[in-house]
Amino acid sequence: MVDSMPNWLYKRAFLTPQRTALETNGESLTFLQLHTYSEKTARQLASLHVKAGDTIAFLLENGIHTVTMIHALEYIGAVIVPLNHRLTASELTYQIHDSEAKLLIYDECFSNKVTDLKRDIDINVVSTAQLSNEKQVQVDLQTEVNLQQHHTIMYTSGTTGSPKGVILTYGNHWWSAIGSSLNLGLHETDKWLCSVPMFHMSGLSIIMRNVIYGMPIFIQKQFAPKQVNEAIINNGVTIVSVVTAMLTKMLEELEGEYPASFRCMLLGGGPAPVPLLEKCQKRNIPVFQTYGMTETAAQIVTLSSDYMLTKIGSAGKPLMHAQLKIEKSGVTLPANEIGEIVVKGASVTSGYLNRKKDTAETIQDGWLYTGDLGYVDEDGFLFVVDRRSDLIISGGENVYPAEIEEVLLSHPAITEAGVTGITDEQWGQVPIAFCVCKEKVTKHDILNHCQARLARFKLPKHIHFVDALPRNAANKLLRRELVHLLDNKLGT
Amino acid sequence: MVDSMPNWLYKRAFLTPQRTALETNGESLTFLQLHTYSEKTARQLASLHVKAGDTIAFLLENGIHTVTMIHALEYIGAVIVPLNHRLTASELTYQIHDSEAKLLIYDECFSNKVTDLKRDIDINVVSTAQLSNEKQVQVDLQTEVNLQQHHTIMYTSGTTGSPKGVILTYGNHWWSAIGSSLNLGLHETDKWLCSVPMFHMSGLSIIMRNVIYGMPIFIQKQFAPKQVNEAIINNGVTIVSVVTAMLTKMLEELEGEYPASFRCMLLGGGPAPVPLLEKCQKRNIPVFQTYGMTETAAQIVTLSSDYMLTKIGSAGKPLMHAQLKIEKSGVTLPANEIGEIVVKGASVTSGYLNRKKDTAETIQDGWLYTGDLGYVDEDGFLFVVDRRSDLIISGGENVYPAEIEEVLLSHPAITEAGVTGITDEQWGQVPIAFCVCKEKVTKHDILNHCQARLARFKLPKHIHFVDALPRNAANKLLRRELVHLLDNKLGT
Repeated sequence: MVDSMPNWLYKRAFLTPQRTALETNGESLTFLQLHTYSEKTARQLASLHVKAGDTIAFLLENGIHTVTMIHALEYIGAVIVPLNHRLTASELTYQIHDSEAKLLIYDECFSNKVTDLKRDIDINVVSTAQLSNEKQVQVDLQTEVNLQQHHTIMYTSGTTGSPKGVILTYGNHWWSAIGSSLNLGLHETDKWLCSVPMFHMSGLSIIMRNVIYGMPIFIQKQFAPKQVNEAIINNGVTIVSVVTAMLTKMLEELEGEYPASFRCMLLGGGPAPVPLLEKCQKRNIPVFQTYGMTETAAQIVTLSSDYMLTKIGSAGKPLMHAQLKIEKSGVTLPANEIGEIVVKGASVTSGYLNRKKDTAETIQDGWLYTGDLGYVDEDGFLFVVDRRSDLIISGGENVYPAEIEEVLLSHPAITEAGVTGITDEQWGQVPIAFCVCKEKVTKHDILNHCQARLARFKLPKHIHFVDALPRNAANKLLRRELVHLLDNKLGT
Repeated sequence: MVDSMPNWLYKRAFLTPQRTALETNGESLTFLQLHTYSEKTARQLASLHVKAGDTIAFLLENGIHTVTMIHALEYIGAVIVPLNHRLTASELTYQIHDSEAKLLIYDECFSNKVTDLKRDIDINVVSTAQLSNEKQVQVDLQTEVNLQQHHTIMYTSGTTGSPKGVILTYGNHWWSAIGSSLNLGLHETDKWLCSVPMFHMSGLSIIMRNVIYGMPIFIQKQFAPKQVNEAIINNGVTIVSVVTAMLTKMLEELEGEYPASFRCMLLGGGPAPVPLLEKCQKRNIPVFQTYGMTETAAQIVTLSSDYMLTKIGSAGKPLMHAQLKIEKSGVTLPANEIGEIVVKGASVTSGYLNRKKDTAETIQDGWLYTGDLGYVDEDGFLFVVDRRSDLIISGGENVYPAEIEEVLLSHPAITEAGVTGITDEQWGQVPIAFCVCKEKVTKHDILNHCQARLARFKLPKHIHFVDALPRNAANKLLRRELVHLLDNKLGT
């Protein structure tokens, strides 16, 4: 059995050239046009000496040009590092260094950030505007891909603080898309909305499905509840990827109901509150709860339509190609007992870039230890109880306490730091910090220190000064117990 | 990226246990029931000492029990050899010996054939009736499969006479099913009719799609045009696999039109006559022409719905995972030039059982040399001009001249034999034979000789006595020129 296949866009442009590939509010592109634009961009990248095997980072907004850039980089055979533009210059610097990116491509709107960046990185940078003026150079397009080939490096943090680069192959993306189609079906009338960030797995996976399925996608620059509702009602969108916070706002804005052609609200990013699901049920919104992460190239467990109403609150069962077990201390648990969610399948990453130890700890014998907590009921349906003990999900973004603590500890006055999440009406969750200090320092000082080093969504909403942090016998910080410090009124 | 995944039926019975899996005119089974029955059969097979890695042949009619048998053998991890019950005892003996099958499972209706067979084979035989009375033995079900694992050995002949066992892996079947779904789409309302033989690739591929898609299939014991039409009109069948001869008869029987829910008449098995396609177009029958063979695990080139009307007569473009080129003397030809059809992709067999030389000749660098003739037009659409220069397709069955010639030459009076196909109103094509004899012999004698050794559909419809056969300088038989002997009236 061969492991190679045609490049997906190249094949799509050949199979269904005239079918619509991308739509925005003002523009529309066929697969042939998308190919032509991507080929042009590939030739312009080649003029900057980008070649097969190079790692290239980009800092781009959602848009047609970002989809074009991804396919251009595939055509050259480069490995893609999509950067989160909500990060600070120092966070971005870390990812650019760690991935050994050779070039940074950015949208002009991020010029200030890039100016800051340039102090710390010595790689070439080019704006998309500059690139579009480059001459085109003859280049052999990689019209065939190997499924083992690296496609993307995406950064995600762990309990240890520093973000790790998740390696995703063409095969990981392919199997993720196929697994989803075998669950949701594949209709000629499908159109998937992409208002989630393309630098996240949720957005990138839509771009992959676009070319693998030959299905048009509707692109929005960013999430705005009213505009998403309009796209569903007026633009023939049939599937939308959302997280809880997004869905909540869409419901607030929605008057009446979505059209009957709207067939799937794919709800990811953490355990969904049952009242929200029940509200959707009442308004005839077909919600498919799903569970996945960067390491699984998006969805790996999704509730099938057969059980949308009878298993409300469940994230479903592992997709056709995937497997799932609940483990505790190395033992697979029976139904209804809470333990760690462990998954396996061809969409799961083979590991973290240049991190053998982290990889060996996280992936054992093909099984990915997610760190998330959950159980399966007697019918085998997954219920996610809590994302990774330390993970905070704020407005759909993953916030890792360890990363914030590291920044806090780099402040000269702070000797100990602990971060946890608290419920927030607007963002779902927000991080709060507890600090033990050796000298006097103001909250304002600390926030200033953080602002220079952390993306805005990671900034602690409250800072509490305490005498000591809860720790276990091995002196390990017990983040889950931090919240009790609030009750004890030890802090201020 | 892992190469293993859950067994398809096992996973389906877990994902969607209550969904209908199989339907016949009288019976209906859910995926859970299909699993339960298959598990039971696996336990009964285990009591006959069938174990992982064994090769098991079967001689079975289309029916629920055959689907169950296939999955039972998968659960044990045995390799399956589906035998064509239209073959004679001596033809079957050859395949049983060549595949080194350890056990033959048969339906009681083929008892006479099996009695004949038993003279020449020394392996165990068991009827399905006997098997169903066996006790059940505890066995570890293979609930996980490796895509490289052998699933099926299916026999097909070449230009050299003896049938060869095509090895098909789980991966070959999987990619074939996925490739088809990315072209045809996947609707929750789909129901695929299986009236083509399950021992053929066309039937077997429907059984694979059944569990991979989680889509019900409607089973008929054999093809009968009226019954197929009824299944479309009354039983919610949305997709039917046919060959030209079948479709012609269905049209003759059809009064009115098929319902709008009927969405795909998948037409394979050779170049389709354009008048037939036009007739379908007039009657609003959505025909998807397709090209494939046992070696490609069914479809590898299929016309997508976008081009059903504008590219009438074309077999379409290679499926998403596949590639195609037209070659002559080692050179890839430009558009509109006729040459050999060469294909590549993950659904293509890795080779023939125990035949390194044949494999090396047929598959080079992942590309399968089909021996069929065709061209691609300027838009890349394949037009099949002729199946393998020597292949006769009679009522959907492949008939290989070399095999018939071998039998003719085994007659003591015949010194030279040549076989070719002529057009036949009922069967599409039928074989006719040309013989050079060293002594007097009657046509009746020759036919008797053939009847004992060849399946009925392979028997020459006419036998012509000639003085010499057309041969090239190297003395190679020129089968394409045989037909001119008829004009020359050299024979009788």
